[in-house]
Amino acid sequence: MRACRREAVPFTPIWLMRQAGRYMQEYRDVRARVGFLELCKTPALAAEVTVTAAERLGVDAAIIFADILLPLEPMGLQLEFTKGDGPVIHNPVRSAADVDRLIEIEGVGALQFVFEAIRHTRRALRHDLPLIGFAGAPFTLASYIVEGAGSKNYVQTKSLMYNDSGAWHAMMSLISRALVKYLNAQVDAGAQALQLFDSWVGCLSPDDYREYVLPHTRSVIAGIASDTPVIHFGTGTGELLKLISEAGGNVIGIDWRVRLDDGWERVGRDKAVMGNLDPVALFANREQLRGQAKTILEQAGGRPGHIFNLGHGILPETPVENVIALVEMVHEMSSK
Amino acid sequence: MRACRREAVPFTPIWLMRQAGRYMQEYRDVRARVGFLELCKTPALAAEVTVTAAERLGVDAAIIFADILLPLEPMGLQLEFTKGDGPVIHNPVRSAADVDRLIEIEGVGALQFVFEAIRHTRRALRHDLPLIGFAGAPFTLASYIVEGAGSKNYVQTKSLMYNDSGAWHAMMSLISRALVKYLNAQVDAGAQALQLFDSWVGCLSPDDYREYVLPHTRSVIAGIASDTPVIHFGTGTGELLKLISEAGGNVIGIDWRVRLDDGWERVGRDKAVMGNLDPVALFANREQLRGQAKTILEQAGGRPGHIFNLGHGILPETPVENVIALVEMVHEMSSK
Repeated sequence: MRACRREAVPFTPIWLMRQAGRYMQEYRDVRARVGFLELCKTPALAAEVTVTAAERLGVDAAIIFADILLPLEPMGLQLEFTKGDGPVIHNPVRSAADVDRLIEIEGVGALQFVFEAIRHTRRALRHDLPLIGFAGAPFTLASYIVEGAGSKNYVQTKSLMYNDSGAWHAMMSLISRALVKYLNAQVDAGAQALQLFDSWVGCLSPDDYREYVLPHTRSVIAGIASDTPVIHFGTGTGELLKLISEAGGNVIGIDWRVRLDDGWERVGRDKAVMGNLDPVALFANREQLRGQAKTILEQAGGRPGHIFNLGHGILPETPVENVIALVEMVHEMSSK
Repeated sequence: MRACRREAVPFTPIWLMRQAGRYMQEYRDVRARVGFLELCKTPALAAEVTVTAAERLGVDAAIIFADILLPLEPMGLQLEFTKGDGPVIHNPVRSAADVDRLIEIEGVGALQFVFEAIRHTRRALRHDLPLIGFAGAPFTLASYIVEGAGSKNYVQTKSLMYNDSGAWHAMMSLISRALVKYLNAQVDAGAQALQLFDSWVGCLSPDDYREYVLPHTRSVIAGIASDTPVIHFGTGTGELLKLISEAGGNVIGIDWRVRLDDGWERVGRDKAVMGNLDPVALFANREQLRGQAKTILEQAGGRPGHIFNLGHGILPETPVENVIALVEMVHEMSSK
């Protein structure tokens, strides 16, 4: 929490995106019993995997176990997680008429299970560990809503954006209003910080980001109760960091494709940053891993406002002992 | 050819990566009769699709129809193109022992069909249209050799790179020596310019690129007969452009994630650049398409040394009439 506010800290705090995930035996044991969506919707189990991961790894924050696509269901989208292939939306949005059929979320009661999981986690979690809530950012959610699945080239998404900008902006506004309600309700339930995942925004040119995305993301962040730190994250965003920072957030995520010092320069020194180890570095031997972590800490230069993390989520085949070793290394190397 | 040398030209030349491809009816007709690898290995047919695409579109260059993975077969790798899933290598390289089993290419006789296709095309092609030869760059080839297929996270590739840098460099050197022979033989057969496709290099951090890739790519480019212009291309390379330019090439490819003017600054004004329209812009209405093309021409600022292209290959579902319209627009808007 102090690093989010760029206050001095005794060592660089670290947590890892997707730290509760398939690479961890305890998580696989739970998933052997319940499906992915069922796990998200069972607060006691979501809390269990959240707390177990944070405590096992010795990280400095927990992030609630959930999925960025959960708010899509109350908007009228038929979401399914298929084995192996990831999320599928059976009624994707491809036209202005489809946009008109999306449901404006009045309350967030349908997502009560997320808030209950947050309350549950907050009770079970070590008192001094902050709990991060999160949501997908408008563009990344829109990309799933339009493509109906993950995508490589975002042809449908950009086609709608270019060919019916009215429908595009209407959809983005509707998503953004839902997100404000959803995120503030997470804070009310006990989330102490929030992360906005704009994971796929790096497929856009800077001009397209400015025109089709920035105003909407800005409205989401502006709508969040102002004393809650917001982490604004994306991948492949080297060219967008300045605009992403303009859109808002106290902490800006940087991936490994950009040197942390260069990225921080673009973000602005008045903001904190999070990153930026390549998730594949966790497959390297200890000497390599240590070297790469050290480089990142050196680029951060001991300035307040650096939260150590990967540049994207932990990969499923990652050896858990390397993750634990990384957490120890970062704490040790950054201790003053 | 003049744009490659940064000489004045009457209008901005344009060609499009993968301009002979599935989006075009004439290509699909040929592919209904022969498989992908068979097409590559039948010089008369490879020449036919090359020439047809260039003439139908009215572009200013042709690129020989071939695949970046063709040189892998004589190196002892079992390559197959499966329907829908793309290339598969049945005996991928995962260890130093696997690297030792790779075959050092002495001559390039096994790739005779490529040179024959170039000779055939050169005879059939309009006299004033230059013909571009090409190959995959060492890193992109290595990523297929190690992963055994396309990849999302390059876990095996980077694991070998990080955990056995000796084996990595040995493999990259062997690939690079083969590429020098292969590319020079393309020039001997009649290719007037060469493009090196480092399509997937954008997954690397700048430090990793400098250490594990740059020396090898540099040795390939340095080994090419010096009067042949070399186009050095990659995607997601915003942070790497300066290093890619250092590695060599007369023309540096820039993708749509970077503004062309920013990219050219990083590349250096003493080099030409190629790019950088988002391939998905070809799905937009004419007004949008024209606007995006105009922005790129404005960013190029009429300076000599800009070759108009997409930031990556034409997508299979692209409407061919939009491609033709783009070529006309670029010629018209850039005419002096």
